[in-house]
Amino acid sequence: MNMKDPINVGLLGCGTVGSGVADYLLGTGGEKAHIRLSRVAVADLSKARELHFEYITNDVNEVLEDPDIHIIVELIGGENPALKYIQRAFENGKSVVTANKAVVSRHMKELLEEARRRSVNFAFEASVAGSIPIIRVLRGLRGEKIRKVTGILNGTSNYVLSRMEEGMDFEHALRSAQLKGFAEAEHLLDTGGFDARDKLAIVASLISNTPVTPNQIYCEGITEVTPIDLDFASKYGTEEGDSGYAVKSLASAELVEEQLFLYVYPALIRKDHPLASVRNERNAVYIEGEYCGPQLVEGLGAGRRPTTSAVVSDLLRVADCLRQGISEDLPQLESNIRIGDIRKVTRRGYVRMNLRHVPGSLSEASRILAQHGFNIEDSLQRRRFRTQVNGETVIPDIVTVEPLSYEIVEEALEALGESDRVLGRPFFLRFES
Amino acid sequence: MNMKDPINVGLLGCGTVGSGVADYLLGTGGEKAHIRLSRVAVADLSKARELHFEYITNDVNEVLEDPDIHIIVELIGGENPALKYIQRAFENGKSVVTANKAVVSRHMKELLEEARRRSVNFAFEASVAGSIPIIRVLRGLRGEKIRKVTGILNGTSNYVLSRMEEGMDFEHALRSAQLKGFAEAEHLLDTGGFDARDKLAIVASLISNTPVTPNQIYCEGITEVTPIDLDFASKYGTEEGDSGYAVKSLASAELVEEQLFLYVYPALIRKDHPLASVRNERNAVYIEGEYCGPQLVEGLGAGRRPTTSAVVSDLLRVADCLRQGISEDLPQLESNIRIGDIRKVTRRGYVRMNLRHVPGSLSEASRILAQHGFNIEDSLQRRRFRTQVNGETVIPDIVTVEPLSYEIVEEALEALGESDRVLGRPFFLRFES
Repeated sequence: MNMKDPINVGLLGCGTVGSGVADYLLGTGGEKAHIRLSRVAVADLSKARELHFEYITNDVNEVLEDPDIHIIVELIGGENPALKYIQRAFENGKSVVTANKAVVSRHMKELLEEARRRSVNFAFEASVAGSIPIIRVLRGLRGEKIRKVTGILNGTSNYVLSRMEEGMDFEHALRSAQLKGFAEAEHLLDTGGFDARDKLAIVASLISNTPVTPNQIYCEGITEVTPIDLDFASKYGTEEGDSGYAVKSLASAELVEEQLFLYVYPALIRKDHPLASVRNERNAVYIEGEYCGPQLVEGLGAGRRPTTSAVVSDLLRVADCLRQGISEDLPQLESNIRIGDIRKVTRRGYVRMNLRHVPGSLSEASRILAQHGFNIEDSLQRRRFRTQVNGETVIPDIVTVEPLSYEIVEEALEALGESDRVLGRPFFLRFES
Repeated sequence: MNMKDPINVGLLGCGTVGSGVADYLLGTGGEKAHIRLSRVAVADLSKARELHFEYITNDVNEVLEDPDIHIIVELIGGENPALKYIQRAFENGKSVVTANKAVVSRHMKELLEEARRRSVNFAFEASVAGSIPIIRVLRGLRGEKIRKVTGILNGTSNYVLSRMEEGMDFEHALRSAQLKGFAEAEHLLDTGGFDARDKLAIVASLISNTPVTPNQIYCEGITEVTPIDLDFASKYGTEEGDSGYAVKSLASAELVEEQLFLYVYPALIRKDHPLASVRNERNAVYIEGEYCGPQLVEGLGAGRRPTTSAVVSDLLRVADCLRQGISEDLPQLESNIRIGDIRKVTRRGYVRMNLRHVPGSLSEASRILAQHGFNIEDSLQRRRFRTQVNGETVIPDIVTVEPLSYEIVEEALEALGESDRVLGRPFFLRFES
């Protein structure tokens, strides 16, 4: 194959990103790169589409079985039937470019092995953090030991937290995100941390060279974070000249003595940490490597154009490989690094609880915390945050505690929840840095 | 060549970075990647070295002419004789990995052409911004139009400005940088902007696909910046609820209507811009692309380990190409984008001048500025910044002005400098955002 020979692309799915990629390929971008959009398969032909293109079909096999197509770009999303389509593409000797985090996070190793066996390519830059070239960057660092990767990988959660920083409560912040098109009606995939968890599984697999799947990752969403937490965080420690803290939903993979610790949860992060200033719908990944040191990559994590950017980046590289008759050096995931128990890791944190506004409540809560070995650092109650819970006035109380394992924290939270001096569920937030 | 066949590396230069790379290759890194350090050439054998390695020579030809060596890693720095050595390596069919910004920024096109002609590889990630994978990231974005790249590309300058933010004057800040090992005794290469200019030439060449050399880039250092500027910047606009500004030495390439505008100069940048929070010796590159949108990559821009990280990243990729018997898709630099005249571009900015502390000085200065078409927005004089110039008390005066071309600004500065009401040279600082 000559460097200028056209590469034929079959597109599966023509939604937000699919139509972006189609537009790119049908425009000057495809022409310059000698990459031709051959066929597009969609689920429903009757849906009105902006795309003016004659080879649209609702029969996915017309694309998958077309012998002239070199690369399948899979943009239908969701685990099934996308997985089947990708496997079929490999069987037919085609390379695959995908943005599908559900498939990649659950089947990365088997798909990479299959691609290697068939000498085709499998590229998934767009499956993590949109336009941020995190896969490319991590592949570039494969010669060194990455100690830790910490990401802000869900734009919706980050947007919601940014609004809450301004005083909005969760419901209003979420509504604002939905109006801006950053959040779906079904928001729990995002705000519950599950979207970030899929992406983290992919990142963790790459840095550990071990297959990691989403169900191995501890996951906590941001639905219980309140503006009280953001306010507390912002001021905490500033009296002693500290920078204060932001609350961010972090997705992190850390290698400690041949064990991999994984989590998605909201946490307090110092305002002078580069991740603290990542605002609104933006995503970012903070990488700590043995040689490269700390490194931040920040950008747009979702949306038509940013995701198209990542798909096109993969497409150009895969096309280049095809023309040279080679397959890329795909990740092996051949290591066997053990997943550590995140609940046994100790972290500093704070407990926020709604204390009954009657004498002795704080003393009773303190007694329970002490019973579980909590060593209280600071205790804070602010009148202006008083609120009504079940018709009763409560003032949220925040106590910061020295590092404890989450196992113990959970027991304490349960005991607090059972006390008649505490209304509703107490909430625990960790310090990240 | 088999995937596990050892690749032999010849190293030219064994200073800070060279010894880092040697350590890496002689350790588990080289073993895992099946990359072997064969020979090292140094200028002076008598220099005490930490490196324990038997094949060290002071005859560069023993490395360049060794038929068993596949890749030359050139880390001697400086344009000559490094250029000659790289060319010789190509002639001998060897690929080259280099960290040499002086050579790459001045000879990129001819070296890429020579590498292509000989079907070898030429990689220079380490020549720009140390561990930050900017070449890799920009190559990944080659399918889209990059509108602008703005970098903090010189760690010394950024460190000095960070100290000046805390109130230190230039001399003390520079001394502090020298004590920390971030600045050389000969600091003008860094503080004069010339180091950043070389790096910008490389970045600009890649985004425009046009050969750009350092002498085509407007360049102004940070030596005339004072703590007064940092203080003014930090507060400017905050009364109206604005974020205030930081002063950063920026290296920027911008494509406007098929013209490329290039500059290195200190500028005021809004504190909520991602580049404003890049502190100390850190480097960063802010990329604005048509599809990817704004993107930031931040990390360590110099030093033994970060630069080794970039060299190793290139080395692994080049070794992979060799094993597959292919050469990379090297940049062509075949476009012919015109370099625009940065002095004709209009920018908002401010003039800081030392006015004689006698009646009528400000009125005289204002008259001169008005004569040159300056439309003054704000005028500020702060008693606490009064200083002595030639034994006379002066209070620096800062006036912000609406956008003007630098051509006109220069004329005005000259006229001000000639006025007997103004002591010393007036200073102009631009707003970036």
